[in-house]
Amino acid sequence: MKSEVSAAVLLIGDEILSGRTQDANLRQIAEFLQPLGVPVKEARVVTDDQSAIVDAVRALSAAHDYVFTTGGIGPTHDDITADAMAVAFGRSIDVRDDARAILEEWYARSGTQITDARLRMARIPVGASLIANPVTGAPGFQIENVFVMAGVPKITRGMLEDVAHRIEGGPVTHTVSVRLEDVREGDIAAALGVRAQEHTEISFGSYPWFEDVGGALRRGVVLVARGRDEAFLDSLRGRLEALG
Amino acid sequence: MKSEVSAAVLLIGDEILSGRTQDANLRQIAEFLQPLGVPVKEARVVTDDQSAIVDAVRALSAAHDYVFTTGGIGPTHDDITADAMAVAFGRSIDVRDDARAILEEWYARSGTQITDARLRMARIPVGASLIANPVTGAPGFQIENVFVMAGVPKITRGMLEDVAHRIEGGPVTHTVSVRLEDVREGDIAAALGVRAQEHTEISFGSYPWFEDVGGALRRGVVLVARGRDEAFLDSLRGRLEALG
Repeated sequence: MKSEVSAAVLLIGDEILSGRTQDANLRQIAEFLQPLGVPVKEARVVTDDQSAIVDAVRALSAAHDYVFTTGGIGPTHDDITADAMAVAFGRSIDVRDDARAILEEWYARSGTQITDARLRMARIPVGASLIANPVTGAPGFQIENVFVMAGVPKITRGMLEDVAHRIEGGPVTHTVSVRLEDVREGDIAAALGVRAQEHTEISFGSYPWFEDVGGALRRGVVLVARGRDEAFLDSLRGRLEALG
Repeated sequence: MKSEVSAAVLLIGDEILSGRTQDANLRQIAEFLQPLGVPVKEARVVTDDQSAIVDAVRALSAAHDYVFTTGGIGPTHDDITADAMAVAFGRSIDVRDDARAILEEWYARSGTQITDARLRMARIPVGASLIANPVTGAPGFQIENVFVMAGVPKITRGMLEDVAHRIEGGPVTHTVSVRLEDVREGDIAAALGVRAQEHTEISFGSYPWFEDVGGALRRGVVLVARGRDEAFLDSLRGRLEALG
């Protein structure tokens, strides 16, 4: 039995693992889910390889309430996510009329020809429900508790708008964040540990930062407290600042 | 039997999953490993939770030649990575003299007091070898095929310098990248698929991009070809550009 709602993110694509592309989707999905009360508890990044995608999505779907995937649903030969999802959930897959109609209407407006390659984007597993794509037309889809979305961050963000109403969230978590300068983690670790023991319902974190300012190195720590009682968190702010 | 050398990255920390911090380490580790001929084939992000860390590092250590972890080795109560690694590999852990000596020398130079919290950073599993930290002193460590490093990107980068000589790489992969404007993936998908079938020893990828330039949306595609024969890849560049 899971005691809390949780989500996982699965990023699909050689370009993220190779370092060629800096992922932006994990962060934007987490920020989107936060006010819905659904924390992201795990993320994975896999290559454009069917068995890697299938294994990961099955594991994450079983362990979490919701899974969000990005990448691999475009028109090119290396876009294999839709077929991998069909395999993972034992569904058949083909070009589906509802998705094809969306593409036809979209491309008709711009006078673009629908090629065989573009029609690949209408391949949707049986029983999946479509996710609207307000940016480039080609839809994503939801299969069981998995939301399959595009990898281009602007398109991902657009698709999330059509996902929000499908999420049943838990209690919302609030955050207080305090930035201290000229402090090292070791200076405040003991005091922060005491706070954490006093307030076990609050999650405390500390994150060191370093900055070059005109050639001079500055350092400090960001302290973060996370919990459900917004008023209490506000009251903590001063005590966290006083650690600096 | 693994036919190729492969690596995995394990990012540890609530702050990445919450979206509060944008990870930069996956990319910099991948870029560091690329010229060593070690591709990153998988990455995971887990919370500051012992069983989550233990399960992930065991799975990745068994599936890949090398694992690189970042985060959770600082002085505060939420830094539990070192203890989790000891559990994962069945080792005992305590403050170790060699690590303590490094901290003492480092802090003596700056006249900083060694607190109990700072001594936590000298907790190293039995049998692990230290990884030098040229930025803030406190060492990382290698345990079996796992390199345990700090999460602050500047420190991670510094530690990688002391990891390079421990890596036995595979053949180096080269990359050719071509940026096309005013092209949609669907326009070139068929031609790119033909290239991919002609040259199965090359990995072809296509990545759409969108940009706002003074309010006007521009779009295009970046084509990437990756393989071992650098001269052949160079000869491909013109043919990829001709797809635009």
